[in-house]
Amino acid sequence: MSHEGRLRSAGIDLPEAMTPAGLYVGCVDVGELLHDSGQGPVDGDRIVTGKVGDSVTLDEARHAARLTGLQILATVRAELGSLDRVVRPVKLFGMVNCAPGFNRTPAVIDGCSELFNEVFGDAGGHARSAVGMAELPFDIAVEIEAVFQVV
Amino acid sequence: MSHEGRLRSAGIDLPEAMTPAGLYVGCVDVGELLHDSGQGPVDGDRIVTGKVGDSVTLDEARHAARLTGLQILATVRAELGSLDRVVRPVKLFGMVNCAPGFNRTPAVIDGCSELFNEVFGDAGGHARSAVGMAELPFDIAVEIEAVFQVV
Amino acid sequence: MSHEGRLRSAGIDLPEAMTPAGLYVGCVDVGELLHDSGQGPVDGDRIVTGKVGDSVTLDEARHAARLTGLQILATVRAELGSLDRVVRPVKLFGMVNCAPGFNRTPAVIDGCSELFNEVFGDAGGHARSAVGMAELPFDIAVEIEAVFQVV
Repeated sequence: MSHEGRLRSAGIDLPEAMTPAGLYVGCVDVGELLHDSGQGPVDGDRIVTGKVGDSVTLDEARHAARLTGLQILATVRAELGSLDRVVRPVKLFGMVNCAPGFNRTPAVIDGCSELFNEVFGDAGGHARSAVGMAELPFDIAVEIEAVFQVV
Repeated sequence: MSHEGRLRSAGIDLPEAMTPAGLYVGCVDVGELLHDSGQGPVDGDRIVTGKVGDSVTLDEARHAARLTGLQILATVRAELGSLDRVVRPVKLFGMVNCAPGFNRTPAVIDGCSELFNEVFGDAGGHARSAVGMAELPFDIAVEIEAVFQVV
Repeated sequence: MSHEGRLRSAGIDLPEAMTPAGLYVGCVDVGELLHDSGQGPVDGDRIVTGKVGDSVTLDEARHAARLTGLQILATVRAELGSLDRVVRPVKLFGMVNCAPGFNRTPAVIDGCSELFNEVFGDAGGHARSAVGMAELPFDIAVEIEAVFQVV
C-alpha cells in the first residue's frame, strides 16, 4: 500500500502546514534529501505550549509529538505534492521543552516516531535523537526537525 | 548578480574565519552538501556573550545572529575560495543562549536568515530551526550551524 | 593502515551497540551519507549520568564523550559490517548535560573528536557543534549524534 493509502486507511487527516515563524521556508530539497524546518504541535486552532514535566504531562507531550509529526507530514506534502514521493524518513531531531528534572524525552518523541511507522510502514525506520531544551519558540511543548529521502 | 557581487554591493566585509575551538575543522563537504561547524558572534576583537533576555536584549541578540552569519560565510569562503560556489543555504540550526523564560528565538535567528537572504538573493531561502539552549560554549549569545548546497 | 587496523593497534575494543531507547533505529544510510542516532556513554554495564559541572567533572565528562564515541563506532560497525567502509566522519552534534553555568562544552566533546582522529587518522577531520542541553534522556552526561561519509 502507498504512504497516502496508509494515511487514508488509518483515517488520518493532515492539518494545514503552518507558515514559517521567520525569514525561512518550510522545506529545502537537495538531490534525494529533503530537509524540513523545525515544526511544532498544532491542535485545531491553538498551539500546544508549556514545560513538559510541569504544566504538560508525559502523555500530553507524547500526543504533542504526534501532532508535530502531522505538521511535518503536512509540510512535506505541501512541498512534494504527495507523501508517495517519500522513500523513507531518515532522521528526526526531537526537542522537548523540559521542566528541570524531566528526562523521559525518548518516550515523548515516540509519539512522532509511532506516527511515522504507521504512515510509512516497512519504510518507517529512522535515526533519531530526543533531547531536552531550555526553551522552544513561543513556549511550544515539542519541536521536531526531520530529514527525508525523496524521489 | 553573483553572491560575491551582492556582498560587495551591500558593502559587507567578511571577518576572518575563527579557528575551531577544539579538535575539529571548520567545514566538511561531501558531494554537493557542505556541513559548517557551529559558529558564534564575533564583533571586532571580542565575542558576544551573555544570556538573551537577561544581559543581552532581543535586538542585541538579533545582531549577534547576523555576526554569526558573517562568521559562517567567512568559514565557507575560506573552504571554497568564493561564495559563488554556493548554490544555496539548505538548513540552519540556530541556537540561542536563553535566560529562563526567553522564547522569542525565531526573532533572534532572523538576524542570520536576513543576511543570507541579502547575500544569496533569490537562492537565499533555507529550512531552519531556532531554539533555546541551556548553555553555549564560552557563554556566547548565539550559535548557528549550517548546511549549504555547493558546486 | 585501515580504520579497523588502527583500532586494533590502539588496543581499542568496541562495546556492544546499545538497543535504541524508542521507536527508531540505530543508523540510516542514504547514498554516501550515514546518519547515526544520538548515542550516550556506556561504561561496562552502567550508563554515565549526571550534570556536568555539578556531579560530573570536566575530566569525567570528556571521558564520557569518548565512551559515547565508542558507542557511535559500535553502531556504525553493526550497520556496515566494518569501519573500513567509513570514508570519514562528516559532522558531530555534541550535547552536554550542563549544570547551570558550565559552558566548557568544546573541551568535553573533544573526548569524542580525539577518538575519531585516532581511529580515522588523516581522514578524521570533521565539522562539529558542542552545546549545552537542559536535559538528556535518562540524565546521561553526554549525547552525540553523527553523520559519516561511507562507501
